[in-house]
Amino acid sequence: MNSAELPAELNNLAMSEAARPLLDKVIAHVRDFCDPAYEEYERLGQTRTDRFSYAPGQLEILGDLKARAKKEGLWNFFLPNADTGEGLSNLDYAYIAFELGKNPLASETLNCSAPDTGNMEVLERVGTQEQKERWLKPLLNGEIRSAFAMTEPDVASSDARNISTTAVLESGEWVINGEKYYISGAGDPRCKIMIVMVKTSPEAETFRQQSQILVPIDTPGVEIVGPMHVFGQDHAPHGHMHIRFTNVRVPEENILWGEGRGFEISQLRLGPGRIHHCMRSIGSAEKALDMMIARGLSREAFGRKIIDLGKNMETISRARIEIEACRLMVLKAARAMDVLGNKEARVWVSMIKAMVPEKACKIIDEAMQMHGATGLSQWTDLPDMYMKQRTIRLADGPDEVHHAVVARAERKAFEASNTRRQIVAKRSQNHVFEGP
Amino acid sequence: MNSAELPAELNNLAMSEAARPLLDKVIAHVRDFCDPAYEEYERLGQTRTDRFSYAPGQLEILGDLKARAKKEGLWNFFLPNADTGEGLSNLDYAYIAFELGKNPLASETLNCSAPDTGNMEVLERVGTQEQKERWLKPLLNGEIRSAFAMTEPDVASSDARNISTTAVLESGEWVINGEKYYISGAGDPRCKIMIVMVKTSPEAETFRQQSQILVPIDTPGVEIVGPMHVFGQDHAPHGHMHIRFTNVRVPEENILWGEGRGFEISQLRLGPGRIHHCMRSIGSAEKALDMMIARGLSREAFGRKIIDLGKNMETISRARIEIEACRLMVLKAARAMDVLGNKEARVWVSMIKAMVPEKACKIIDEAMQMHGATGLSQWTDLPDMYMKQRTIRLADGPDEVHHAVVARAERKAFEASNTRRQIVAKRSQNHVFEGP
Amino acid sequence: MNSAELPAELNNLAMSEAARPLLDKVIAHVRDFCDPAYEEYERLGQTRTDRFSYAPGQLEILGDLKARAKKEGLWNFFLPNADTGEGLSNLDYAYIAFELGKNPLASETLNCSAPDTGNMEVLERVGTQEQKERWLKPLLNGEIRSAFAMTEPDVASSDARNISTTAVLESGEWVINGEKYYISGAGDPRCKIMIVMVKTSPEAETFRQQSQILVPIDTPGVEIVGPMHVFGQDHAPHGHMHIRFTNVRVPEENILWGEGRGFEISQLRLGPGRIHHCMRSIGSAEKALDMMIARGLSREAFGRKIIDLGKNMETISRARIEIEACRLMVLKAARAMDVLGNKEARVWVSMIKAMVPEKACKIIDEAMQMHGATGLSQWTDLPDMYMKQRTIRLADGPDEVHHAVVARAERKAFEASNTRRQIVAKRSQNHVFEGP
Amino acid sequence: MNSAELPAELNNLAMSEAARPLLDKVIAHVRDFCDPAYEEYERLGQTRTDRFSYAPGQLEILGDLKARAKKEGLWNFFLPNADTGEGLSNLDYAYIAFELGKNPLASETLNCSAPDTGNMEVLERVGTQEQKERWLKPLLNGEIRSAFAMTEPDVASSDARNISTTAVLESGEWVINGEKYYISGAGDPRCKIMIVMVKTSPEAETFRQQSQILVPIDTPGVEIVGPMHVFGQDHAPHGHMHIRFTNVRVPEENILWGEGRGFEISQLRLGPGRIHHCMRSIGSAEKALDMMIARGLSREAFGRKIIDLGKNMETISRARIEIEACRLMVLKAARAMDVLGNKEARVWVSMIKAMVPEKACKIIDEAMQMHGATGLSQWTDLPDMYMKQRTIRLADGPDEVHHAVVARAERKAFEASNTRRQIVAKRSQNHVFEGP
Repeated sequence: MNSAELPAELNNLAMSEAARPLLDKVIAHVRDFCDPAYEEYERLGQTRTDRFSYAPGQLEILGDLKARAKKEGLWNFFLPNADTGEGLSNLDYAYIAFELGKNPLASETLNCSAPDTGNMEVLERVGTQEQKERWLKPLLNGEIRSAFAMTEPDVASSDARNISTTAVLESGEWVINGEKYYISGAGDPRCKIMIVMVKTSPEAETFRQQSQILVPIDTPGVEIVGPMHVFGQDHAPHGHMHIRFTNVRVPEENILWGEGRGFEISQLRLGPGRIHHCMRSIGSAEKALDMMIARGLSREAFGRKIIDLGKNMETISRARIEIEACRLMVLKAARAMDVLGNKEARVWVSMIKAMVPEKACKIIDEAMQMHGATGLSQWTDLPDMYMKQRTIRLADGPDEVHHAVVARAERKAFEASNTRRQIVAKRSQNHVFEGP
Repeated sequence: MNSAELPAELNNLAMSEAARPLLDKVIAHVRDFCDPAYEEYERLGQTRTDRFSYAPGQLEILGDLKARAKKEGLWNFFLPNADTGEGLSNLDYAYIAFELGKNPLASETLNCSAPDTGNMEVLERVGTQEQKERWLKPLLNGEIRSAFAMTEPDVASSDARNISTTAVLESGEWVINGEKYYISGAGDPRCKIMIVMVKTSPEAETFRQQSQILVPIDTPGVEIVGPMHVFGQDHAPHGHMHIRFTNVRVPEENILWGEGRGFEISQLRLGPGRIHHCMRSIGSAEKALDMMIARGLSREAFGRKIIDLGKNMETISRARIEIEACRLMVLKAARAMDVLGNKEARVWVSMIKAMVPEKACKIIDEAMQMHGATGLSQWTDLPDMYMKQRTIRLADGPDEVHHAVVARAERKAFEASNTRRQIVAKRSQNHVFEGP
Repeated sequence: MNSAELPAELNNLAMSEAARPLLDKVIAHVRDFCDPAYEEYERLGQTRTDRFSYAPGQLEILGDLKARAKKEGLWNFFLPNADTGEGLSNLDYAYIAFELGKNPLASETLNCSAPDTGNMEVLERVGTQEQKERWLKPLLNGEIRSAFAMTEPDVASSDARNISTTAVLESGEWVINGEKYYISGAGDPRCKIMIVMVKTSPEAETFRQQSQILVPIDTPGVEIVGPMHVFGQDHAPHGHMHIRFTNVRVPEENILWGEGRGFEISQLRLGPGRIHHCMRSIGSAEKALDMMIARGLSREAFGRKIIDLGKNMETISRARIEIEACRLMVLKAARAMDVLGNKEARVWVSMIKAMVPEKACKIIDEAMQMHGATGLSQWTDLPDMYMKQRTIRLADGPDEVHHAVVARAERKAFEASNTRRQIVAKRSQNHVFEGP
Repeated sequence: MNSAELPAELNNLAMSEAARPLLDKVIAHVRDFCDPAYEEYERLGQTRTDRFSYAPGQLEILGDLKARAKKEGLWNFFLPNADTGEGLSNLDYAYIAFELGKNPLASETLNCSAPDTGNMEVLERVGTQEQKERWLKPLLNGEIRSAFAMTEPDVASSDARNISTTAVLESGEWVINGEKYYISGAGDPRCKIMIVMVKTSPEAETFRQQSQILVPIDTPGVEIVGPMHVFGQDHAPHGHMHIRFTNVRVPEENILWGEGRGFEISQLRLGPGRIHHCMRSIGSAEKALDMMIARGLSREAFGRKIIDLGKNMETISRARIEIEACRLMVLKAARAMDVLGNKEARVWVSMIKAMVPEKACKIIDEAMQMHGATGLSQWTDLPDMYMKQRTIRLADGPDEVHHAVVARAERKAFEASNTRRQIVAKRSQNHVFEGP
């Protein structure tokens, strides 16, 4: 953990020359195309009768943006070192993802939206040729969408060992029974495939009991009970669905990477997923900061601009400082994934997952406060931004779990370092200076 | 401000003997009748097609609860020292209001819900006999509901001098033009009357320019543009409405207390309204604390009950401490209103308005975190509770305005106190102990 | 814990009529006599060569103040319900103790300073007639001073079961061996007697292993190794001494209340001691608030008074709010001790011990910041005030231990309350509102 | 401010290959020589009779360490791009300065201690040949020490325009009158020269009224009134002196860079000085983190290691995260100074000055708490570390001034950026989604 002992290049957080023009293109894409389109997209959405559908015109808007992005070469950036030859380094991608956080449609228009990115990375890394052909290909093309079914309503899922949905092998088929919730994206009519975390091997050692299995969403026995809400919102049509599995049967070969490797796959997927969240969190915090300045400059009360009242200028300063610190930490975590690999970089990923959404929430909350009642209303994006960031403090592991990862790593590093232990021992030894 | 200089009785925060049986009745009313009814009420609400209406059965549930409360003598507690003989002291009412915070229907069933309480108090204090007959009577009977139209979308309304909706006297009628938003309760089909803050006298001295006028909601020219959202919720059918006034005409005698007395009336109404909010905030925080303990005891992760993990026990302790501190502060502010009067108690009211909802938000947020994803969902009341408390940090004056009131009072008290100034002068004088 | 279930009188926090004139006298005593005397007292102190002594004139100043106080009837207020007929209720004493926090000499001039107060209360409650005659009498007269030797350098003393200093009965004498540190007051040449916490009965059940024994400080084998510092200060001549006990022999009858009752006595003593700390903490925070206002009004920068810059006014408001909340909580804890008894009031005492010094530290720290460099210097009392309050966050149990007491009580109360458990169960039950 | 618009190389925070072996040497120097020497050095210091002197042996210890460092090439690292050919880039120096923060002697042994570094940089940049020969040369050789006299006791010096010490030109000499305090290093008997900020041109425009003048400390009329304390410590022999200037006369040519350039010089000096403080702050926070882990692992209470109790593990995680974030921010500020120059980098410097010491204080405070009473004692370095970091929150500009710099820059950047303004305008425009 002590930076001094890590390779110096870890701290080279500069974007590569090659990526710079892509970033410029992305900025233009978001500003010139996603931003105007979003307004229309939202308006159309309000005409739906079935919330878990798209209104006429909505998918066309998305389709146009995706086609444009693809043509510009802005596609599938999220996937580093892929056989397919696509993708940027995590570090370069980070710069781009900051920008994607500023518009709710932007990620999808570049085929870089969760949970597809994680699912595609898993399929690319551990999928069989058949699995790739059947599912990875249309995902990489942006033709279908996917979901990842992990969390369960009846157990503390932050401890993945608690997962209790079962899959039993019967006559060449996995038979799945159980209940999952907050399955993001499963409400989208375009969602065709789920990766489901299940317990296959209850007798195995603790971390070999779980597996991940591909389950087409239209498999009989898959029942979408309803949408889970977030602060009363259903986030339709994407949705965070409550799903019941009753004797759901899929072929034996739908298992990913083999029985009992569920935890291993999680390690693989969660790094990138988490880091992408944090990158977008920063984009969102930047946007909140801009909004608070704009609002502060546009209104007056008690004879001064609102920005000049009370602690508002200090709030702005603190927001800027925290954003820059978060940005550098995210870049560092991305760089760590590039240089050290996903596994070694895990503690850096946990650091930013525990740090960034919490700070983004605070900044957005302050922006709301500076807006007065309008800050809570549908006239700004702030409430959506807040609810999104608040959710991320629980998604992919609550803050507490990530703090535990960081603290355990720190403790181990301390115990493993003779230098650190000796220096402290010397320095905090009792009775040293006891004098008259 | 210095407690030592205030009457000792200010610190007698005990509920009166007389009120105790009422409190017991209220507790039973909420637990035995409101809680079960709320579930059914919510279920029925989901069948509405027009959100700003009541589903068949909903008003009957409310009506039954109100009838029951009235019969038990649990009615109009909020109005101290009224000619009508109704009402408890603010202090006694506070104890009851804590309980009302635990169920969303409870306040209304006792005819103690905002903004009617403030409107009734204003009418009772400054209304003419005709105004009382026409509007106060049905309000006190719980037959109609009301709204208070103050905040405007185009100015920083935290500085009430910015209010720009105009009322001009023409041939015995006030002609009103302007725009208001976040007019809570104006979405309810039972809402019949609004008190509207308007600028009547732009040439008068600063704090004599505004007046308050009674405007029946069905007056021509009153256009309900739509509901303002709070975190995406419309809070239908109550609603926080966006209202446009276009050449709205009401009789000259609809003015309250006379031209230019708008600010005076506000002083009157905002004390009780704010203190009631804070009382209910504490009830809400208590409920969040109970929920976090219950959740922490009901689940396990990493080999221990969730309540025993990490900082959770300390979070519970801090919540309990802050709740008790907030409770005593609210009781003190209520007592100050009883002993010193609304005007002198103003700084105590600002203290709790700036303190209590902020702390309630924090406690509810921690309860959400301890619940995991469920804490954000419709399966608990926590998101509604959070959004409610977050809103109160802006309603009736943002925290910042109340901090300004407190700080200015403190500064004045310091400047006015020879004792305080002299002691400090002596103690912090430079150069005193400069030694060899 | 739930206030609604406690006796209403618990919330009567008003000072008694009888105590009011005493408070006025104390205020005058501190302002008119202690404050001027303190300056001279400090100046004299700088002439000492042996820091653990008094300079000529210092004890005379103290003696005069004590004589004056005694004559005015301001003496031994701390001891409620004593056979000696002295003492105020905890509640009345609290009002007086707030004032004592404003001057470093004040407590001692009223014979109300730690650790004597705790020692006197213990002797009064459980001492034998001989013990009272020998030690309590001169203490009550302010003729000698005393210490309480509990904390040990080599174990985590926050868990009192860790105490390892031993006392073995040999031929009618307790033979004591071990090491104690941070023994406050043991540096004072007037300190004659210590109450020492020892392990006498290692075979007994956990909470019956410890005893408390009276040890005259001049007993052979008592070695004062040196003063423990607090932020580099030795707090001479009072001092926080490091003491080694080597075969220290005292008569068998020096034990207090009998073998194995050490924990019971601690319960008794720590309530009042802790609450007195907190009362004085509030006086200290009040003083810091006055100083920050005075400083903010006296200097200008960037064209405005410092008090008007940035968040300073909000800092003042938050300080006032927290002080009032802390004051009410301390009054409530004092009242709880009066009404419920020390044992039942324990959780209230832990609440304020965990709450008040932490908030006082924050307020004093902010006052330092508003003073610029002078705030850290010997030209103000602020650094001393900070260090004192910071120390109290560790003395008599660190914050963490008190939070644990509060949280455990809260958890038990929740588990014991059918009402609380049922209401939560109903309200947070999963799957309730799952809709179509 | 928006990273996307800045040169990519700004984010290359990797230490240069060339500097790596120097860093390794410095680590070894601190660990193998400074750490053992410090203990002896402290012990000797306690034998002094005159606190503002060195005990026999102390200067020899320092001299040996300095000679050793010089021989190893570890000398004058702080001075980038100097004519003398010495010095590292700010970025490379930052890595080294982190290590210097871990031992109180380390900086001086490399001739890198404040305030000499700032004084040397100023002399190197704007000194005349004579000034360099007379003062810079012995400073660079570590033969003498120096001070910078800026802050005044009677004005809010955070606004440098308030500086009121005057210098009037009379017959070829500057005649200086006024009072300065907290002049760090002026207590050291080796301190020979001061740079004094004075008002020379009260009629000039605001930022041209001040000048900086070289004043040998033994000039007649320079009176060292006494040491200013920090939390009661005099930090002897270094000291923070209170100095009175009474008709102090120095030759006209002692002015630096010309009359009225005082502010310009300040801009120059304060960047590096502030960044060096922050680098060492991080070293100090790292040390506190190590100490808290060591303590947590070494003691048990309530049946578990202290590190496993309550929130301690989360505290460790948060400390690690904040340290890494601070480290990256400091590296970024150093890099900004290298790439953009001191002036353009100013906002980055203010960001870290406002961020890092505040967070270091918090981490050290938590380490104290985890140590129990020992954490406040002379048995650990923690109190010294805390007081040092707390002081830095006021030295070289209080946090508030730096937040103001950051906020003003942010506001200007927003106002200057069409893109930012337009995007926000579009996004937060009222009335957009007003629906049916």
